This record gives sequence, C-alpha cells and structure tokens, in this order.
Amino acid sequence: MHLNEFIVHFIDVFNIYHLKFLQVQTLLALYICGICGIFKIQYKKLHMNRILTLLIVFFVLFSCDNVKKTTSEGSISEHKTEKSDTEEPTFGLVIHGGAGTILKKNMSDSLENAYKQKLEEAIRVGHEILKNGGTAMEAVTKTINIMEDSPLFNAGKGAVFTHEETNELDASVMDGATLNAGAVTGVTRIKNPIDLALEVMNNSPHVMLAGEGAEIFAQEKGFELVDPYYFYTENRFQSLQRVKQKESNSISSSSSSTFDPYIKDSKFGTVGCAALDKNGNLAAGTSTGGMTNKRWNRIGDAPIIGAGTYANNATCAVSSTGWGEYFIRAMVAHDISAMMEYKGVSLKEAAKEVIQEKVPNLGGNGGIVAIDKDGNVTMEFNTAGMYRAHMNAEGELVIGIYKD
Amino acid sequence: MHLNEFIVHFIDVFNIYHLKFLQVQTLLALYICGICGIFKIQYKKLHMNRILTLLIVFFVLFSCDNVKKTTSEGSISEHKTEKSDTEEPTFGLVIHGGAGTILKKNMSDSLENAYKQKLEEAIRVGHEILKNGGTAMEAVTKTINIMEDSPLFNAGKGAVFTHEETNELDASVMDGATLNAGAVTGVTRIKNPIDLALEVMNNSPHVMLAGEGAEIFAQEKGFELVDPYYFYTENRFQSLQRVKQKESNSISSSSSSTFDPYIKDSKFGTVGCAALDKNGNLAAGTSTGGMTNKRWNRIGDAPIIGAGTYANNATCAVSSTGWGEYFIRAMVAHDISAMMEYKGVSLKEAAKEVIQEKVPNLGGNGGIVAIDKDGNVTMEFNTAGMYRAHMNAEGELVIGIYKD
Repeated sequence: MHLNEFIVHFIDVFNIYHLKFLQVQTLLALYICGICGIFKIQYKKLHMNRILTLLIVFFVLFSCDNVKKTTSEGSISEHKTEKSDTEEPTFGLVIHGGAGTILKKNMSDSLENAYKQKLEEAIRVGHEILKNGGTAMEAVTKTINIMEDSPLFNAGKGAVFTHEETNELDASVMDGATLNAGAVTGVTRIKNPIDLALEVMNNSPHVMLAGEGAEIFAQEKGFELVDPYYFYTENRFQSLQRVKQKESNSISSSSSSTFDPYIKDSKFGTVGCAALDKNGNLAAGTSTGGMTNKRWNRIGDAPIIGAGTYANNATCAVSSTGWGEYFIRAMVAHDISAMMEYKGVSLKEAAKEVIQEKVPNLGGNGGIVAIDKDGNVTMEFNTAGMYRAHMNAEGELVIGIYKD
Repeated sequence: MHLNEFIVHFIDVFNIYHLKFLQVQTLLALYICGICGIFKIQYKKLHMNRILTLLIVFFVLFSCDNVKKTTSEGSISEHKTEKSDTEEPTFGLVIHGGAGTILKKNMSDSLENAYKQKLEEAIRVGHEILKNGGTAMEAVTKTINIMEDSPLFNAGKGAVFTHEETNELDASVMDGATLNAGAVTGVTRIKNPIDLALEVMNNSPHVMLAGEGAEIFAQEKGFELVDPYYFYTENRFQSLQRVKQKESNSISSSSSSTFDPYIKDSKFGTVGCAALDKNGNLAAGTSTGGMTNKRWNRIGDAPIIGAGTYANNATCAVSSTGWGEYFIRAMVAHDISAMMEYKGVSLKEAAKEVIQEKVPNLGGNGGIVAIDKDGNVTMEFNTAGMYRAHMNAEGELVIGIYKD
C-alpha cells in the first residue's frame, strides 16, 4: 500500500465513524508521540529518521483535513450560510395547506388555481410583515389566518366534521426565541384558533387549554365567539357522509375504517407556517380541523408542542401535517430540531430522516415545512402531494402541490 | 513515559472524546497495520520484532477496555452493562409520586412513613410482575394503579381540585418497543386514568382523547364510570380553598397568583413509573390530577407524549413530574431520549442537563424518573424533594423523599 493510498483509506475509515478531524489529529499526534516514546525505550539505537517520518505522516494527514471538508457531502458545514457584517439580515417563511393523496388527475384546473392563489395570498401577507421588520410570530399567525378563513383548507372555515357532525378545531404556536408556546384543542366557536393559541401563550400561565375552558378563556380575553354553524361547508359535510357511508358498509372495525386509504384525501389537511424574521427569531404555528369522522374528542398532533409545532432559535421552526397519531409518536417537530442540535446535521437531512424513514417505519404519512436559523427552507413529505409555498428575503416565490 | 502510563493516558484521551472502544480498537488495528506497511516499505531490513511489539501494544490496549469500563465515571460506557449469555436478563423499575417543595421540617413522621410505605407497596407490585416475566407496560400501569388509589398522591383518588371545584385527570403511557402511545386528558369519572390511556393505545386508532369523548370511549370499552365525588378528599379541597383565598387577597394577576411559591406544595404532584422488563422492553406512564386551581380545561405535561412520558427501546423510558408548562416547552422526556440517541451521552448525563439546566433556564422546576435499556436508573429533580423509589433485578430497594 502506498503512503497516499493509506492516508486516503485512513481518512475514509475515520469519516465512516463520524469523527471530527481536529480531534483525530490531536489523538494521532499523541499516539505517534507515544509510539515514538516506546520505540525510544525499546530500540534506543534507532535513527531519528524514523521519528521524523512518523511526524511527516501526521502533517500530511493534517493537510488533508481542509481538502476533505470542502468536498464531503452532508457535512455539518453544509447548512451554514456565510454572512458578511454589511449584508442585510435574511428572512423568509414557508407554509403548508395539508398533505395527502393529492393527485393531478383528481384536480380540476380551476381548483388547482384556487389553491395556488390562496397559498400565494397567504405567503405574501407573511412576507410583507417580515420585510417590514415584523416578528416571525406575527408573520406566522397572520399567514395562517388567511388559510383559516378559506374553505379550501382543513382549518378554521374549512374544518372537517367530527363523527358527531360538529367541528372541533386545534391550533398551536411556538416562539423560537423564548421557547414559549400556546395551544388550544377541541374549540368549536373560535373563528381563528391560531389567534387563541397565541393568546394562551401571551396572556395565560398555561400552554394548552381544551374545549369549553379554552372558550371561556377566549371570552375573558375579549374574543368574539362565532356560531358553530360558521364552520359548516357543504364539501366537508358531504365528505363526512361518504366516510360514514363507507364505515356502515364495512364489516371492519372502526379502527381500520377510520383510516381507509381510499378516503385519505378528505381526512388530512392542516395549515401551518414557519418563519424567520430579520432579528434572527424563529416561530412556527399550525391550525387544523383534525380528521374527518374523528370521535371521542380525539386530539391530533397539530396542538401538541413537539409533534405538530416546534420552534427554537438554536435550530429551526417546524409545522407538521399528516396522520397525527404517528406524528405524536415520532415527536416529529422536536425530533427534527433535536437531530440538528445533537447530531449536527442540516435541517434538510434531519427532515428527510424523520419524514422519509422514521414516520413511514411506524406506518404513518404526511409532511412538514420548516425553516432554519440561517433561512434554509425544507418542505418534506412522503404523500402524493402537499400544498406548500415558500418565499425568501429576495421575494422569490415557490409554490407546489404535487410531488415534483 | 512508561508503557503502562502511556496506555492509561491514551485511554483517558479517548474517553474525553467519547469514542467507543471497539471502534477505536478497529481503527487502531488498521492504523498500526498501515504504519507497519509504511515501515516495511521504508525500512525493509527491520526485524519482525518491531511489528510484533506493535501488535502487542494493540492487544494490551484491548485488554484495558474492560477495566476502564468499570472504573470511569460519567463516560459513555457507564451505562453499558456487560452481559454473558448465561446471565439472567436484567430488569428494574423506578417510580415517582411528585416533586415540589417537600421539606423534612413540614412533614410529620407518620406522614413520612405513610408515603414510604405506599411507595414501597407500589414498587413491589411492579417488581413482582417484572420478576415473573411480565411486560414493562404491565408493571408500569399496575404500579401506578396503587398510587392512583391512594389519597397521598395527586392522581386518581388524591387528585387536586380545579378552580371550578372539580377533578380533571390526565394520564399517558408509551411502549418503548413499538413507540405506541395512549393518553387521556380532562376525564372526571375514570377511577384509574392510566388504564384508560392504555386502552386508548391498545384499542383505538387514536393516541389522545379528551374529556367527555374519552369517557364515552371508556364506556364503549366496558370501563365503569365512577361518581365524580369519588375524587373528593378533604385535604385537596382545603388546599384549593387556601389557594383561592390567597388569590382573592392578592392584587396580582391570575397569572402570578396561580404560581405563588408559598403554595407550590399543594400544586405539584403526579405519579409515574418507568420500567425495563426481562425482554429488554421499556415502558413509561404518568398519571395526575394536574395543578390545584387550574382553569379553562388546562392540559399539563402528564398526558403529552414527549413531555410527561416517553419510552423508546433504543434509549430509555421517562416519566416527568413538575411544572407542566415548562416541561411541555422543554419537551423534557423526549429531549432526554434524543440527547442519548444523537449525542451519545448516558441517561444520567442527559437527565442532568435537562432537569438541572434546560428546565430551570426557562424558569421551571420539577423532576423525572427514568430507566435506560441496560437497566440504569436515574431520579433527577431540581426541587426540594421528590417522592421516589427504585428497585433492580436483585430486589435492592431505594426510597427517597428529600434531596440527599
């Protein structure tokens, strides 16, 4: 084996084991010095050339370090953005309107356009706030408001129906700067649940309030309660009837019929937003009507901090959409952040591992949108489609529905 | 430097860098072989003795590994248990009955004995199950049942009162083998909420059910609903009256008065258990009445997977107790697991960082009990006391109340 070959092989072995090179170099230096020491004790007559050769090997290895750093893929340096002091602070936001079996063949052009227009309208609202120096949290909540007010999405006005033909809404927000959070679940008279989640965060000693209690809190804080009929939309009501029809035709248990793949379309859908503001603060929020035909006051992942929503200035801001039960069990939003924090991987790598491996391995599906502290954005999903959009500091807009 | 000194120094350096010894040995072998190769190319005349000496150094290093494992403190090897094929599989469990301002000076001998006796009774139930080959989940739920049925703890029979003078109970369980989970929140007629959380996990398509819906589910599954008056205990009712009295005397907002340090005693308290069974499966569970004087159907950390309860066979099982809002925001239970999984630290190190640094930095307090996949146990808290006990495979029992 030639010296060069040996060195390359040696570097590869260390790479496999994810060792940091500077540490390895220090260890090698100590090791070589030690070996030299032993040699000196045991072979006092050896020429100094031997020691020099060993030292040369060490310095050659040292010089390989920088070369390797710039060529290796997926290394920790990948997600760092170089910023000069004079550069404008970056900002950006990313949204989703739900993930599921969204296929081009099932979608009319006019419906597709309606979705795209609403996604663009929503993201432009948040972008304008960020551009003008507003907070990430303001951008997140105002952007989500637009989607909550649209019957296109399963949140606010377009919320799906429960088994009892009611609409029970969930929402949560998290502030990456303070790690403060707010959430509401099972509210039936709150027009914009994301606003109530924010109110819980800002003006209550609690993080999470449920049902009637959350609505009493809302009233105390001056929220106007809407008639539950506000949430009635013919489309969603018909979806429930179809699901119930299928359920009554089916001999299978409620457990399996609730998750019939054929009707997945009408069950998923949540809206969410993750944003980075000019001050380097991250925030995330998620709002949903839950799952069509849900029963027993079921709580999904959307109002669960760490599952549906997570933000931490040290890492990233994440909003989830998908089969909530699996997103809770996989702690999707927090797991992506933890992987970045403790494993040193990029947002993209962390999101990919969680959404393409961990969640499907449990049997679940869905997706996330996320933005990291440097403004890098990821929109990862393992379903046929996910309504999504992002916009960066330069105003570049990306809108997507299907898998590319 | 003598050979022995060099080896010890070398091992220390590797320990500092948290490298796994087997990996290091493999790398050393490759490295030494490489060095030998270079030597052979450059010094073809060298005697074979040199190579033999190097190989001996390698094998001496190998033999040092086990010695180091048993003596190093806080290193990654700390939580590894060496098992021979013939050895009985290890098992164990750890419980808590709540953390808070528990001070010896405020506690009568008879009350202290009552707590110790109940903790011992509970842990022996779980230990017997594990000893006889039962599952970790069975041990967790049956152990918690004992504490739920005792008025000493803020769970089941001893649940604290809400602002509206009701008792709203929360509970959750998680199975480390499947990452399956179940939780209920805001139930008022379920004698043992931990059993209903288990039922949600095993026999519903959902992870989390709330309030009346959860109770309808319970009835459908054959649970007997108790009269809400079952949860009335004079002590807890008087605690609520004292808190309300303080609140009405106070000019401060509801936000601060709800968390007056003087009355912390009566607010905290939760029961929980984490267990490892003979099959190497982990499970955790938590049950609580929440926080005295809680309002608006507040949900704390106990029923939140990842905050109050988390179990993963790859890492550990954790049950939390403390100021729930901060435990949700810090994602306490999942963060400990993630730190072990991604950072490679021991359970003890991870728990210490989360409970002694992360949670207090947010302004919260409380504690956790946890057991890892090798049977190592930790009981970490940052309050004056935590009712706690653990028992290992050898039947060694440790019971504690105050800080040691």
